Amino acid sequence: MADKKGAFVTEITPRSEDFSRWYLDVVRRAELADYSPVKGSMIIRPYGYAIWELMQQALDRRFKATGHLNAYFPLLIPESLLRKEAAHVEGFAPQVAWVTQGGDEPLEERLVVRPTSEAIIGMMYAKWIQSWRDLPMLLNQWCNVVRWEKVTRPFLRTTEFLWQEGHTAHETEREAEEEALRMLGVYKDFAEQELAMPVIEGRKSESEKFAGAVHTYSIEALMGDARALQAGTSHHLGQNFAKVFDITFQARDKSVQHVWQTSWGLSTRLVGGVIMTHGDDSGLILPPNVAPHQVVIVPILRGNWQETVLPHAEALRDELVAAGVRVKLDARDEHSPGWKFAEWELRGVPVRLEIGPKDIEKAQVMSARRDTRDKAAIPRGELVTRVQALLGEIQHDLFERARQFRDDQTSHAASYEEFKTTMDGRPGFVVAPWCGDAACEAAIKTETQATIRNLPMQAADVSGTCVRCDAPAREQAYFAKAY
Amino acid sequence: MADKKGAFVTEITPRSEDFSRWYLDVVRRAELADYSPVKGSMIIRPYGYAIWELMQQALDRRFKATGHLNAYFPLLIPESLLRKEAAHVEGFAPQVAWVTQGGDEPLEERLVVRPTSEAIIGMMYAKWIQSWRDLPMLLNQWCNVVRWEKVTRPFLRTTEFLWQEGHTAHETEREAEEEALRMLGVYKDFAEQELAMPVIEGRKSESEKFAGAVHTYSIEALMGDARALQAGTSHHLGQNFAKVFDITFQARDKSVQHVWQTSWGLSTRLVGGVIMTHGDDSGLILPPNVAPHQVVIVPILRGNWQETVLPHAEALRDELVAAGVRVKLDARDEHSPGWKFAEWELRGVPVRLEIGPKDIEKAQVMSARRDTRDKAAIPRGELVTRVQALLGEIQHDLFERARQFRDDQTSHAASYEEFKTTMDGRPGFVVAPWCGDAACEAAIKTETQATIRNLPMQAADVSGTCVRCDAPAREQAYFAKAY
Repeated sequence: MADKKGAFVTEITPRSEDFSRWYLDVVRRAELADYSPVKGSMIIRPYGYAIWELMQQALDRRFKATGHLNAYFPLLIPESLLRKEAAHVEGFAPQVAWVTQGGDEPLEERLVVRPTSEAIIGMMYAKWIQSWRDLPMLLNQWCNVVRWEKVTRPFLRTTEFLWQEGHTAHETEREAEEEALRMLGVYKDFAEQELAMPVIEGRKSESEKFAGAVHTYSIEALMGDARALQAGTSHHLGQNFAKVFDITFQARDKSVQHVWQTSWGLSTRLVGGVIMTHGDDSGLILPPNVAPHQVVIVPILRGNWQETVLPHAEALRDELVAAGVRVKLDARDEHSPGWKFAEWELRGVPVRLEIGPKDIEKAQVMSARRDTRDKAAIPRGELVTRVQALLGEIQHDLFERARQFRDDQTSHAASYEEFKTTMDGRPGFVVAPWCGDAACEAAIKTETQATIRNLPMQAADVSGTCVRCDAPAREQAYFAKAY
Repeated sequence: MADKKGAFVTEITPRSEDFSRWYLDVVRRAELADYSPVKGSMIIRPYGYAIWELMQQALDRRFKATGHLNAYFPLLIPESLLRKEAAHVEGFAPQVAWVTQGGDEPLEERLVVRPTSEAIIGMMYAKWIQSWRDLPMLLNQWCNVVRWEKVTRPFLRTTEFLWQEGHTAHETEREAEEEALRMLGVYKDFAEQELAMPVIEGRKSESEKFAGAVHTYSIEALMGDARALQAGTSHHLGQNFAKVFDITFQARDKSVQHVWQTSWGLSTRLVGGVIMTHGDDSGLILPPNVAPHQVVIVPILRGNWQETVLPHAEALRDELVAAGVRVKLDARDEHSPGWKFAEWELRGVPVRLEIGPKDIEKAQVMSARRDTRDKAAIPRGELVTRVQALLGEIQHDLFERARQFRDDQTSHAASYEEFKTTMDGRPGFVVAPWCGDAACEAAIKTETQATIRNLPMQAADVSGTCVRCDAPAREQAYFAKAY
């Protein structure tokens, strides 16, 4: 609960002073998450979870509209199953939690707490899929996964996190490729429309792709400290898992073929992305589409306000709720309006409405935007339309502001000297030609901490030489320091 | 996917012949769940998961309407934390999965995969709660839990299952008691209104109560084979966990006190309950409120039906969908209408609509109820109102039928001989006086397999002697053989 001593807001480290501490302060003081006794696990508190629920609804709607069904697969996976796909186990075995005992008995075979579910789902697809008529199979799962991380940070990297993982099987390579791209598009649309978070879509380099995939697509966002955040990935798995798990079907021409697969995932990490994209020194700024409270109403506490002002505040709330707006009426009497203003700013509520005796007299309500702090009087009769318009504007403006920032923080490097100098500071995205060699990519990472976030969707002709070595350039890469 | 050989429906064992095999057949053939490679875990397939999603929505709505917020607590709990409450660990330690290694390293302290979350939540409540102003704290969590079960059955008893667990903290014992009863009422309302499943509410006996509770309330339903199913439990935890985890608050009178707590849970087991309450020899019968498809439209495949009939079928679908009805249009051309009728009966779709050239001529649609198999022609112009009315009737009639069955299967036993004879057959609920002694309760269980499902909410005066021993009766107990 909130600190009662009033030193509430000032305890947030300024963003410009220490972005990382600012982030942790906001997570804690806005009551989004808390630490748990298991190292690296977090507790998602109601306000943070409500944001995730709104994200889930917005994504789930999109998944269902594109023909996907939800299902649920087991948490615990036999070691032998995970070991079937060589690249997959190599990628995940070092970071899984092992269950070795059930009740009083040691297990004959160790179980892993799922880090992802390609293996178990592959096994079931082999059982369920017989004919081309069973395809495409388009499933999604909302669940928790565990990856044993050494360095963790709430939402961004935690031992356990919540996510969705889509798993699909198709008749042809082309259909699987179309699906991988379709879901990348769904992620981009979700991030930009709901989270007001502009993203760059592209292909991952070989060394950054998913363990077991043919290729991986990603969307990459730029946080307020100009570091990149991988916001969602979509993998074309080819026939890798199909061959290992023997997922075959009788094709239209009666031949027996292996299916082509995709998988794609997006997690609670995006809650951290929202904080770091939009927040400021006063705390969180939430895009209206994922704000648990889109509007907070603060009554002015004058005289017998509970009889004079409160009924008006309740009427405002009821009208807005009836119009589908998510509203919080803060009618607590132990805090002053000023204290409440600061608290709801910290918590990022997009629109604040104030109502007091003078407003009632003038048949108006005072509004304040969280993002610009602009204030305006709204005639009482125009409440719903004006608030809805305001929410739409804020959603739009937050996106535009973030896009402007992202564009301002995107540069091109002509030489490796220039590249290194940029990476020394507050780099953002640096677009540079790359030879395509993984060793060169690794050297850049060692020398500058920058990784290739992604490559353009379509490989285009690139002239000149690699930003680091003398070899001919083969790709235009988006480099950044990343979370 | 469905067996392509056409022997689809006949493979279900008749309910009257072997209820248990009938249940497993329905689960498998209706594609509700499948077995997984981890013994005792199940895979919830899309059709089964869609039922669970509808249950979740109906419950979550009720939780939020009663002031509860969702949050998320970690899956993995340190052993020392679980061990703090003596009765709690004694109840759960024998059935937990142990994580002993993370990545490449053995853990210093073993972790349990949560079997329930009182311990971790108790620890966090101690941190979050300081003042009476922080109370009541009303949280709920939707998650997976693991309990190492020896004998399992899909939905009814599985090593991993999905559930919600509510955890609340209050200023006074009375408020906690009211909350425990309120949530029992929510469960009863949910079971009866949404699942059409009549339940008996009551208190658990001391030996059947939750490990760590002061007392446990439950709702108990009667399945089609006259065995009882515990459908939801609500626990008054008193100050047991508060004292162990030191959850204190400054009261209104400035004294420091321990909070009073409740917890309550309901799981995917209820999907099994729906199957066993309403199903018949042809398969599943779903109450409309939790049916993924409330209506299936089957076009009659005559001549060039795709040009003549299909557009009409699509129009029916669109009208119903626009009215908020969940509709499946089965336009596959590889199956006959008769095959489809049997398939959707098996899957329990409440209403089937058939449309063919003759119906179009007569401006009507043929309807068939799954529960009664009654057929009726619906004038095309009355489609939406008639279908909505039909769904309401089916929801109502399923409940009434189940209640009638439950009442018919509830008897009173005057002597232990009579009690034993009844328990030998197809007993249902047997109401009988009980002395209140746990040893006597245990002996009844050993001798007849019957357990006390619950006791009346209010202990009433009971005359006479215990059904088994000569001691004076203290309770009227509901006995049954149970899942």
